[in-house]
Amino acid sequence: MSPTPSRRRERRERRSAPASPLAHIPWLSVKNSMPPLTRLDEEGRQKIHEASMTILEEIGMAFLDDEALDMWAKAGAKVDRSRQVVWADRQLVLDLVAQAPPHFTWRARNPERTVFIGQNQINFAPNGGVVFVHDLDYGRRPGLMKDYINFLKLVQMCNAIHIAGDQLIVPHDVEVSFRHLRRSQAALKLTDKAYMEAPHGRIISGDAVEMAKIVFGDDITESNQPVLGGIINASSPLRYDDRMIGGILTFARANQVLIITPFILAGAMSPITMAAAIAQQNAEALAGIALAQLARPGAPVIYGGFATNLDMKTGSPAFGTPEGAWATIVGAQMARFYNLPFRNSGTLNTSNVPDAQAAYETMWAVWPAVLSHSNFIMHSVGWLEGGLTVGYEKMIIDMENLGMFQHFFQEVEISDDTLALDMIKEIGPGGHHLGTPHTQARFRTEYYTPVLADRQNYESWQLSGVGDAAQRANKIWKDVLNAYEQPPLDEAIRDALDDFVARRTEELRGVELYS
Amino acid sequence: MSPTPSRRRERRERRSAPASPLAHIPWLSVKNSMPPLTRLDEEGRQKIHEASMTILEEIGMAFLDDEALDMWAKAGAKVDRSRQVVWADRQLVLDLVAQAPPHFTWRARNPERTVFIGQNQINFAPNGGVVFVHDLDYGRRPGLMKDYINFLKLVQMCNAIHIAGDQLIVPHDVEVSFRHLRRSQAALKLTDKAYMEAPHGRIISGDAVEMAKIVFGDDITESNQPVLGGIINASSPLRYDDRMIGGILTFARANQVLIITPFILAGAMSPITMAAAIAQQNAEALAGIALAQLARPGAPVIYGGFATNLDMKTGSPAFGTPEGAWATIVGAQMARFYNLPFRNSGTLNTSNVPDAQAAYETMWAVWPAVLSHSNFIMHSVGWLEGGLTVGYEKMIIDMENLGMFQHFFQEVEISDDTLALDMIKEIGPGGHHLGTPHTQARFRTEYYTPVLADRQNYESWQLSGVGDAAQRANKIWKDVLNAYEQPPLDEAIRDALDDFVARRTEELRGVELYS
Repeated sequence: MSPTPSRRRERRERRSAPASPLAHIPWLSVKNSMPPLTRLDEEGRQKIHEASMTILEEIGMAFLDDEALDMWAKAGAKVDRSRQVVWADRQLVLDLVAQAPPHFTWRARNPERTVFIGQNQINFAPNGGVVFVHDLDYGRRPGLMKDYINFLKLVQMCNAIHIAGDQLIVPHDVEVSFRHLRRSQAALKLTDKAYMEAPHGRIISGDAVEMAKIVFGDDITESNQPVLGGIINASSPLRYDDRMIGGILTFARANQVLIITPFILAGAMSPITMAAAIAQQNAEALAGIALAQLARPGAPVIYGGFATNLDMKTGSPAFGTPEGAWATIVGAQMARFYNLPFRNSGTLNTSNVPDAQAAYETMWAVWPAVLSHSNFIMHSVGWLEGGLTVGYEKMIIDMENLGMFQHFFQEVEISDDTLALDMIKEIGPGGHHLGTPHTQARFRTEYYTPVLADRQNYESWQLSGVGDAAQRANKIWKDVLNAYEQPPLDEAIRDALDDFVARRTEELRGVELYS
Repeated sequence: MSPTPSRRRERRERRSAPASPLAHIPWLSVKNSMPPLTRLDEEGRQKIHEASMTILEEIGMAFLDDEALDMWAKAGAKVDRSRQVVWADRQLVLDLVAQAPPHFTWRARNPERTVFIGQNQINFAPNGGVVFVHDLDYGRRPGLMKDYINFLKLVQMCNAIHIAGDQLIVPHDVEVSFRHLRRSQAALKLTDKAYMEAPHGRIISGDAVEMAKIVFGDDITESNQPVLGGIINASSPLRYDDRMIGGILTFARANQVLIITPFILAGAMSPITMAAAIAQQNAEALAGIALAQLARPGAPVIYGGFATNLDMKTGSPAFGTPEGAWATIVGAQMARFYNLPFRNSGTLNTSNVPDAQAAYETMWAVWPAVLSHSNFIMHSVGWLEGGLTVGYEKMIIDMENLGMFQHFFQEVEISDDTLALDMIKEIGPGGHHLGTPHTQARFRTEYYTPVLADRQNYESWQLSGVGDAAQRANKIWKDVLNAYEQPPLDEAIRDALDDFVARRTEELRGVELYS
């Protein structure tokens, strides 16, 4: 089949695209071969487990959805329909949780981008649920569809990001009733990675599944390799609302990935102590996972942790804190105890600009995440302002760091060749290894080559005028966007997607939907 | 004894000093209760060990000092005096290394500031060997004695720093011949923490020991609780110069702490591969430690690691890299294998300003350091520009992070009280815990309270005009200096110190000494 004219044009454009500054980062599977960090001993872990079971059995969880209440009642839980509260025995909950797969494969439309979720595998996903964008040129402003598209392109161009996100930014210029259609349409066209859509209520989630079917085929609901995933948040404390329950039931029945994440700011949505926050998080996560298994035994789920503390001076959420680091490690430890994959978050920080605070708070979230065997790391690029804002420059700063983590987790070879005793002998005491054949053969590939870090001395740096990290990142994200190449997509599929979006846009116009 | 007039004045001043912004950080013992990170399996570790032994036995180490060559010859090593090279059998080296204490106590002149070195204990020490200072007001400039004094005051005021450093900055306005006298004099007066002096040659090191005796008594050379420590660097590859050997012999014989640290930029001072860099580091560190034990069996030493890679684009050192993180973890693993305390570094970074790069590269050094059971973390505040510069604002940014690490490593209590099931029950689904007695009783003390991080939303932050992290740090370091209080020191001791410094200053005036 000879290429159509538009295909040919695309290819020409692709050939002429400049090299992306992120092109040095390869697509790699990232595994943490070190044992996971842990902070609880057996006794502490057992106490958290027992407290969670007591919460589920004696205090109860609210499920604000009649269908869910029916399902719990049918499964044998005690249900108070007027208060919409469910009390479930630990046996029931743990039996349901045990039906969830300990690991699974999440298919991408480019088979080379398919990812494995579980064990010691690390997958980075981008920002989600963000309202504002920030860049050095215009400061902070509400997000637009243009920004959504830009972020998808940046995500596609960065091989250190394994999954194309959902709700990368709220596109305020698109009507709420069909935002989800535009999001999925853009994600499926502009990236070829495993992708996400917000499972918010039955209509949005149902549309998301239909669009996934258009691209991947109708059998996605039967195969055990899901193609679509989304974040569920408990409305902590101890509550799932109808929006989230609609998403759980719809995605679970379609066999798609649910990342079930209580959102707990200790001191507000739970008692102030991190022990209580984690016990409550555990109860809430297990309750949501159990409901997904009630909807469809074996539905793929990820146990999500998102517990941090409140800032007691401002009443704002505090991110990138010592308490949050502890909660990440302990959250992962609890997920492993139930034999479930774990989700955590990457760039949590409260800074308003891409400064030192943004960077170090981010590292306080990422290091514990990668070292505790978090399998799915959400928000691993871009956050500012406690997740209200995504920064273009911050995205580049974080992408550089993901590239570094990818490199850090590769195994270092210890062999006669790498120990190079012959070279050490030849150079001897007091010489240098700069020009040796051993160095020359490896100097381009041995180390991670940074795109953002500047290592010039002060005088050269000052003369170069490249500015600080944020200023350099400002140039980089523009260069990456200029170098963006759209991955190929079968035209019939593209047309079918567009037709679906056009039809549903008309059907949903004016319909009140969840954002 | 009633206080003298000057004492009374001092007390009045102390009473009226404003509260320091760092006052919220307590003095605490910091232990990492998690197992250390490791990157080598048994086989890899053995290969590194074997390669190091081959280096020492077959390739040899240069010791550019006649006394050291005599000592090695007398101990049975093969010595080539014309080339100043020593080949030592592994049995000899390992027997000597085994005489070093696996852990020890390092006395401070304030007994409450005495520290333990070894096991899973973490001690933070400040910047050292730095040439330039940087602040937002004046940019980068050569360091002066005024800066030296300021840095000592900041170190004294930050409880998260356990040890007062040496060579915090080069005081360019003090003649080289007596810089060491002024440094020790200032450290002993302005701080009451365990302190350091550069063991550079026999004269400087000897003076340092004499000054320590004035403050701590003549028996410091006999007791097994050293009071003074300093950094020794191998002149890699495979060489100790006479300056460093003079320091090793003088400090070891006086029973003071030697932190013996090869400085390896892989690709220049060793082969480019990190396996070779670590094998060479291990050989060099063990050779230096063995020499210290030849000088005095049982002399307290710390095995130092400082291996990172060269930036292959600029030829500059690269700090805060994935390769450096690997080397930290593996270096600590090797030190543990020989049952020795381990030294690493904290704020290694190559940025010229206290920006996002400075912050994230720093975190790439600190996280591996604290998680790999590094016992002594040098340069844990202040670095910029690959260690050529110390930044006032960067110091505050790092001090905040040390406070966070101190908090992170405290044990979190898991008990009925902290699990707070009664509160979770009382609030129930959908409520909030902001005003509960459980929250109210703990909200001031439960979490680490930041001094630098700003958690306001964008609008409030913009209105407040406090600026980014570096701008806020600029105010903080000035406030800390304003709040500085000099710790008490017996007047007779102070006078004796001043007399010693005055006499030796005259004796050394014009004498060429190492800087």
